[in-house]
Formats: sequence, C-alpha cells, structure tokens
Amino acid sequence: MPIAFVCVTTEPASMAEVLKALKAVEEVEEAEMVYGIYDIIAKVKGDSIASLRKIIIERIRKIDKVMATTTMMVVKSE
Amino acid sequence: MPIAFVCVTTEPASMAEVLKALKAVEEVEEAEMVYGIYDIIAKVKGDSIASLRKIIIERIRKIDKVMATTTMMVVKSE
Amino acid sequence: MPIAFVCVTTEPASMAEVLKALKAVEEVEEAEMVYGIYDIIAKVKGDSIASLRKIIIERIRKIDKVMATTTMMVVKSE
Amino acid sequence: MPIAFVCVTTEPASMAEVLKALKAVEEVEEAEMVYGIYDIIAKVKGDSIASLRKIIIERIRKIDKVMATTTMMVVKSE
Amino acid sequence: MPIAFVCVTTEPASMAEVLKALKAVEEVEEAEMVYGIYDIIAKVKGDSIASLRKIIIERIRKIDKVMATTTMMVVKSE
Amino acid sequence: MPIAFVCVTTEPASMAEVLKALKAVEEVEEAEMVYGIYDIIAKVKGDSIASLRKIIIERIRKIDKVMATTTMMVVKSE
Amino acid sequence: MPIAFVCVTTEPASMAEVLKALKAVEEVEEAEMVYGIYDIIAKVKGDSIASLRKIIIERIRKIDKVMATTTMMVVKSE
Amino acid sequence: MPIAFVCVTTEPASMAEVLKALKAVEEVEEAEMVYGIYDIIAKVKGDSIASLRKIIIERIRKIDKVMATTTMMVVKSE
Repeated sequence: MPIAFVCVTTEPASMAEVLKALKAVEEVEEAEMVYGIYDIIAKVKGDSIASLRKIIIERIRKIDKVMATTTMMVVKSE
Repeated sequence: MPIAFVCVTTEPASMAEVLKALKAVEEVEEAEMVYGIYDIIAKVKGDSIASLRKIIIERIRKIDKVMATTTMMVVKSE
Repeated sequence: MPIAFVCVTTEPASMAEVLKALKAVEEVEEAEMVYGIYDIIAKVKGDSIASLRKIIIERIRKIDKVMATTTMMVVKSE
Repeated sequence: MPIAFVCVTTEPASMAEVLKALKAVEEVEEAEMVYGIYDIIAKVKGDSIASLRKIIIERIRKIDKVMATTTMMVVKSE
Repeated sequence: MPIAFVCVTTEPASMAEVLKALKAVEEVEEAEMVYGIYDIIAKVKGDSIASLRKIIIERIRKIDKVMATTTMMVVKSE
Repeated sequence: MPIAFVCVTTEPASMAEVLKALKAVEEVEEAEMVYGIYDIIAKVKGDSIASLRKIIIERIRKIDKVMATTTMMVVKSE
Repeated sequence: MPIAFVCVTTEPASMAEVLKALKAVEEVEEAEMVYGIYDIIAKVKGDSIASLRKIIIERIRKIDKVMATTTMMVVKSE
Repeated sequence: MPIAFVCVTTEPASMAEVLKALKAVEEVEEAEMVYGIYDIIAKVKGDSIASLRKIIIERIRKIDKVMATTTMMVVKSE
C-alpha cells in the first residue's frame, strides 16, 4: 500500500486546528506536531498511488490554514 | 534555443488550476505536478533569452495562485 | 530547565514590532534581530517541556505579524 | 514517551546499508526510504528525553555513511 | 564603509515594480533581477553599520510587494 | 509510466562527467546542467514504480562524483 | 559589542567533540547542541567587528570536524 | 554582457584561500566574503553566455576547496 509522509506548514497561530483537521482524515494514520522547519508531520496511506494523490492534493492541501506541504513518498522496498 | 525549468509553488488548494494555466502557455513544453518541495515543474522554451524572460516574468509569475517560482536556466552545452 | 531557540520570520515591515512583542513574553530570555535567513532569534526557557510548548505555540506563534517560526530545542547535556 | 522523527541524508550509494543499520536499533520504531530532500525518515522512541538524546546522538548519527541528520522532536500534546 | 547584499523575494507578479523602488533608494548601489531562489539581489552601502541597518530594515523591507529578504553582510577584510 | 525528476548535486569539478554518466542510463530521458541550487536535472522513466526505484537508487545515486540527489516523483494525473 | 549567532553543522559522529572545542573559545559566550537543521548554536561576542570576524573565520571555522557554519549577525538596535 | 552572481560554499577552514583564487580570475568583477548561508559572493561577467558558462563551470567550480556553488544569472532587463 503506497505511503507518504506529508510535512505541513500552517499559519503560525493555527497548528492545533490544522492538526485536528488532519486527524479527521481517515487515511491519515498518524499526525504529530513537531519542532523544526515543519509544523506537523502526517503519515498517509492510500489504497493506490491514485487514491494517495487524491487524499494529499484534494483533502490535506485544501485544509484551511495550511500554508504549504512537502510530500515524501515512501520508496517501496520490494 | 534557451530553456529553463521553472519550479512553481502554488497556493495549497490550487495546484490543478495553476497547472492548467501553465499548460495553456504555448512556450511551456511540459508541466508536471510533483511531490516534494515544489508543487509543479515546468519546462519552458523561448526563441531568445529575452523572450524566455518575458514568458517567465510576465506570464508564468503572473498566473493567479502562484506563490513563488524558482527558475533553473539550462546551461547550453556547446 | 528546557530551553529552545526560536527563529522567527516576520512580515518584512514589522520586525521592530514583533521584537517588542517577543521581549514582552516573560519566558523569552533574549531576543535579537539578526541578518540572514531568519529575522529574529529568541531564546526561550520553560519550567517544563509542557510549559515551553505552551509559550512557543500559544504565545510566540500567535504574535501578530509573525509569518513562520523554526524551533530548535536545546539538547540537554546531562 | 518522547518521540522524534529523524530525517537522514546518507552517502548517495549507501541508502540500503544505512536503512538496515537504522532498523537494527531497537528504539527505531520505523524507518523508511523516501523520495525528496532527505533519504530516510526514522521514527525513534526513548524512555526519556535523555535516552532519546543518547539514541540519536550516540547511535544514529554514528552509523557509518550517515552524512547528516535533522531531528524533529514531537510536541507532546498533553 | 559597511556593505550588504540583500536578496529579495517579491510577490510573483511584482518583480519589476520592486526593482524600480529598490533602485530609487540612494544607498542601493546596484540591484539586479536574478533567476534562482531569490528574485532580486541588491548591493547596499551605508556610512555606518547603523545607517546600513536603517536602510535595510526601515526602507528596503518596507517596500510594497517585498515578501521576504535575506541579508548577507560583507565581511570586512582588513 | 512512472516518471521522476532527479535533481543532482555533483562534486564541483565533475559536472560534465556526471552528466555524461547520467545520459548513458537508458531510462534517463533527458538530463540538463542547470544554474541554481542543483547542478543537473534528469528526467527518468521506469516501467513501474519498482523499476524507477532501481534506476534512481541503484544506478543514478551510485554514479561516481554524485554528492546528493533530490527526487521529485511526478504526480500521475489520471 | 558586536554579537553573532553561529549555527554549526558537524560531522555526524562528532557533535560532542566540536561542542567542547567551541566552549574552549573565550569569546563564545554560550554554545548549545540543538535538534533541527543545525547541530550547535553558538553565541559569540567580539570587541569589534574585526575581532568578531577573526574569531568566526580563523577559530570557529577551523575547528576540526566542523562541516559548515551559518553566521547571523545581531542587528545593533541603537 | 551576461552577468551572474555565484554564491560559493568553501571548506570551512579555507575561505581566505578560495577568495584569493576567485579574485585571480579575470572575469570575476567582485568577490566578497559574507556572513550567512553562503561564504563568498562573486559577480562574474562574460563576453557571451558561452564564455560565462566556461568561467563558472571550468574555472570557479574547479578551484580547490570549493564545496558547492549556486549560480544566479542576472535577468537582462532590455
């Protein structure tokens, strides 16, 4: 199953709100606030590359107060 | 013919819309959504350095919902 | 006592105003405007990891005209 | 339990080898090769902030062929 | 005389306008649009460190449509 | 067919040599030296995600004088 | 008195050693290991801009196992 | 006449040496040590795009102790 880590930058005052919205997305397996250059790291799973794309582009990136995302696709190892 | 790769960051919710606008620019030979630190990579060709500048600065950068661009000019090899 | 360096990017015209607001936060031990990729570096101390989190996320990041922050937690050495 | 995401850059030819070494560290709960600006993301858990520090600085950063690491500490939410 | 290179990021559609405003600042010795991660590089000279600070923070950063600046102070060599 | 843009940083004196080696890889459809934060951009095609992974990790990253790579996977649009 | 924050990246296995060497430099008022994109932040004071330059370029940057430094000069506020 | 700003990162202990070598290149109009994410900024002029390429790739990047360069081509304004 395709997996991606999505690093999210939020409007500075809205981390908690974005975190909550991310956790409400069923395919977001895990989402954590972090200290560093990104504000939140989310681990996302899709049934296929196509569904993963949909979740990231049509749902995560459209969450209000998300300013930018950087997606790191997991390299399938076998 | 001068060529450049233009890496585009869009407003998070507007990737598809910006991609469409980029593809409508005749000199944009190719434009692809990508996962990573940029949202879209476009390959642009101009008749001259001057026309390439015009396309990037006066057309691509003025597309609505484009937040930032990073241009990598191709090094002519001969 | 947990310590963090918080690197702040402000709206370009509002550095002095944000600096003043940062200095008004009791737990901000030091705050300096700097030249470079960030605009202000602040050193913040909390009674606990939990209180440090509160200061950064609920106070510093909510200061008006703060555009982004990057937090570097100090590694406790003993 | 304190948690961190450690983003690892390896010597270009040695990703698989570093991944294997990371997975052999007991406290590394998960480690994945990724496409993007980092080569591997590892999720690390420690009994305490002190033990987490030890794992990252004395074990992960000392793995052969690791070129650089960027650590993002998870913000404890309660 | 203290010198700095100020790398400027502008709103995408407003490079020409910001360039013009920069060139109107007397202490800006040179300003050039560039391709790359910044949009404009300006070389600024001040009578003193204090006056250089004033030009950068109170004039350049306050130009309309400037989104961010990164200042690189020249290291005096003697 | 899965596609990726691979941005390559080479040892400073070895760009031409790495470019030549990249062009010798059959799946590298295009490779160009560029001015900017990366040295070479290569467009790579694989029969499958698995074969693309192989080309990037086992061939491109193992080219001598390659210092680092950043891979941007193209988002399949349908 | 001119002040700078020097962000230091060390060889991954040598943070503790570099930290010790930094702390041995008299003008280094404070040096802390941090989690994030840099490994150590040092605060340095010089009698003059010229002496600060000497400390950074001729002493800190010459410490063994230092891979890179990014210096952020503090903007004098009066 | 084509112009580029070349931002140079040197081995930490070798800034002065690289600066001297850069200044010995006839087409390097100006070269300055700077504080920030790069170590030296050089302004380079060539008779043509082709000769500029030669200077950057075959001379500047081949200077001993240069670790990386980022080139920003000046956008010709007329």
